[in-house]
Amino acid sequence: MARSVITLTTDFGLRDPYLSEMKGVILNICPDATIVDISHQIEKFDIRMGAYILASATQYFPRNSIHVAVVDPGVGTKRRAICLETHHGLFVGPDNGVLSLAAEAGGVERAYEINNRKLMLPKVSNTFHGRDIFAPVAAHLAGETSPSDVGPEIKDMLIPEFAKVIKEKNAIVAEVIYTDDFGNLVTNISRKEVDAIGRSKTLTLEVGDSRLTVDFRKTYGEVKAMKPVALLGSHGFLEISINQGNAAKEFRVKSGSKVRFFRP
Amino acid sequence: MARSVITLTTDFGLRDPYLSEMKGVILNICPDATIVDISHQIEKFDIRMGAYILASATQYFPRNSIHVAVVDPGVGTKRRAICLETHHGLFVGPDNGVLSLAAEAGGVERAYEINNRKLMLPKVSNTFHGRDIFAPVAAHLAGETSPSDVGPEIKDMLIPEFAKVIKEKNAIVAEVIYTDDFGNLVTNISRKEVDAIGRSKTLTLEVGDSRLTVDFRKTYGEVKAMKPVALLGSHGFLEISINQGNAAKEFRVKSGSKVRFFRP
Amino acid sequence: MARSVITLTTDFGLRDPYLSEMKGVILNICPDATIVDISHQIEKFDIRMGAYILASATQYFPRNSIHVAVVDPGVGTKRRAICLETHHGLFVGPDNGVLSLAAEAGGVERAYEINNRKLMLPKVSNTFHGRDIFAPVAAHLAGETSPSDVGPEIKDMLIPEFAKVIKEKNAIVAEVIYTDDFGNLVTNISRKEVDAIGRSKTLTLEVGDSRLTVDFRKTYGEVKAMKPVALLGSHGFLEISINQGNAAKEFRVKSGSKVRFFRP
Repeated sequence: MARSVITLTTDFGLRDPYLSEMKGVILNICPDATIVDISHQIEKFDIRMGAYILASATQYFPRNSIHVAVVDPGVGTKRRAICLETHHGLFVGPDNGVLSLAAEAGGVERAYEINNRKLMLPKVSNTFHGRDIFAPVAAHLAGETSPSDVGPEIKDMLIPEFAKVIKEKNAIVAEVIYTDDFGNLVTNISRKEVDAIGRSKTLTLEVGDSRLTVDFRKTYGEVKAMKPVALLGSHGFLEISINQGNAAKEFRVKSGSKVRFFRP
Repeated sequence: MARSVITLTTDFGLRDPYLSEMKGVILNICPDATIVDISHQIEKFDIRMGAYILASATQYFPRNSIHVAVVDPGVGTKRRAICLETHHGLFVGPDNGVLSLAAEAGGVERAYEINNRKLMLPKVSNTFHGRDIFAPVAAHLAGETSPSDVGPEIKDMLIPEFAKVIKEKNAIVAEVIYTDDFGNLVTNISRKEVDAIGRSKTLTLEVGDSRLTVDFRKTYGEVKAMKPVALLGSHGFLEISINQGNAAKEFRVKSGSKVRFFRP
Repeated sequence: MARSVITLTTDFGLRDPYLSEMKGVILNICPDATIVDISHQIEKFDIRMGAYILASATQYFPRNSIHVAVVDPGVGTKRRAICLETHHGLFVGPDNGVLSLAAEAGGVERAYEINNRKLMLPKVSNTFHGRDIFAPVAAHLAGETSPSDVGPEIKDMLIPEFAKVIKEKNAIVAEVIYTDDFGNLVTNISRKEVDAIGRSKTLTLEVGDSRLTVDFRKTYGEVKAMKPVALLGSHGFLEISINQGNAAKEFRVKSGSKVRFFRP
């Protein structure tokens, strides 16, 4: 049988011992796990960035992988710990929105609150649930434990603002969830919603102070240099780009900015 | 049989080829090893920081793990290479103190000097014992080689100043070995010594220019905001913190500073 | 049977999801691969640096490893994707010179152009061949696929300027391919060529504005402090160093600078 893949996405950085403590805990419970780092350079407490990186990367992993995300400003408060069953694998983390885009991209089948103490470390700190709860739960899920063993099913997982697309009468209002090194604007509109809007040849949209009609294409290079273009990025979300240019600078927008797409 | 875990802690950074050369050497000798990075962002030659990160992280790993630490300013001089058997696994590295806190936390059963040339690379450089000695020795220890094969037992491993707690007539003088991102002051007083001092409800101490009596609690949150508190950190060492504040800034102390704890 | 080692060398950094997408693709095809990071902090588009780090590190890996390098400014253009069989393992990447020093160090037996679509992801983007071509091809090569399955054999892989040593009548003109943290100047002269020059006791050379005769030794420490020395570095290339000093600063040279070695 193939070994289980457990991925880790955190805002811990690589200097401190925290990340490797999670790995030690996992290997204690599941010595044959293949642990893969997705990113540990999520900006501290930036749930939106963590959600995007997680959703982007995890769609390329084996479907039986277990993905742990720890961007967790509310650790020690009443925020829940959750486990999601999706078509892209299992997701484990705090119920603060960090799993929401992966849930959207992967399609949630069932969600559970984690409260089974037998799957946690004997002593659970108030400050580090990554090590004390999420890592051991993920390692158990890589073995005989099934998602329904972690706790009761829930129907009300938190959907953060940045995961919501607002439907107005004649428009859809999206949010920029990430701007990459090239200034491309990644929105929170997923492939599924693009299909629902319908893939017209052009899109009319408002971004920053600009209102413009752009071609909707497959790759940047299909429009002329310095022309704006909309495309479905390889990470599964709708992007606004400028071929060979920098859309973030041109339109003066950043993570969190709104983009209004007018219905055809 | 479960695959062997070999962890690596160095001051090499992640840019240069050095770290991966160690991994290549390990996989040549022990193709089934699970290699885990603890940290490679130890400050160059900062033995104290390396010792702390190593001791903190390794307590969470399987007990049959092999931990390699290479913070090695004295490479090429007469400093010895050593291997320690502890209750927290085997430790391999230079005899310069970088293994000392892990030895303290894990309890050393036996220490050996590494001098068996058969376990090293055929050509040992003067500049990179991580690759030429420590990596291959660790990989052999993951197989049939036992610690007593690496060389003669020794009784005099180097205990650096930062691992020593000085006992005065009415006080114990500790040292700050690490200040984390939150300004918490981690001292070199381990769980064992805390038990020896006795867990009184308050501790009177001198830190920086301040003399104060602080509560000794289980978590930061048990004292009011901006109040100092002593606690046994999850990494197994006594910490001085200020709840929601920054003890390092408040008391103007840093790694290497002394803290004097008065006996009750 | 031992699990296959696949190494990755890129200029992607560790923040973005790109690197882990490659790992996901690999694990989907070859769940038992042992994936090892060599470096992802190659300077963006710095083919020379990537080539050096790759050649240095890979000589220490098992001979049946598969090494993927993605420093790929020409992605989406007509530059070829190639696979090399060498005595140091298989190498997969763009035909832009990033594999050239590893090819030189490892000795190329055969080179192939990668054009077999069955070994790639179903949809190949114009912007990310690391994920869509190189990762899946490497993962297939870790299984039953043999190098000759990836595409036609080629005889004209690109040899970049920095991999060429120019032979003049009475001198050999080399290039500095890397300057490490200590200011040591690593040249593109490999062990094979050193043997061809003949290992004389001294070397007369021109570096920066200086002409000097230096001892050719085994280690830095064999010359007096602050004296220049030539040696065959542990990475397999001829280095110019100053014992306990900084040759890059002293001679005011950097990556790309020429060094002229006069024949004895």
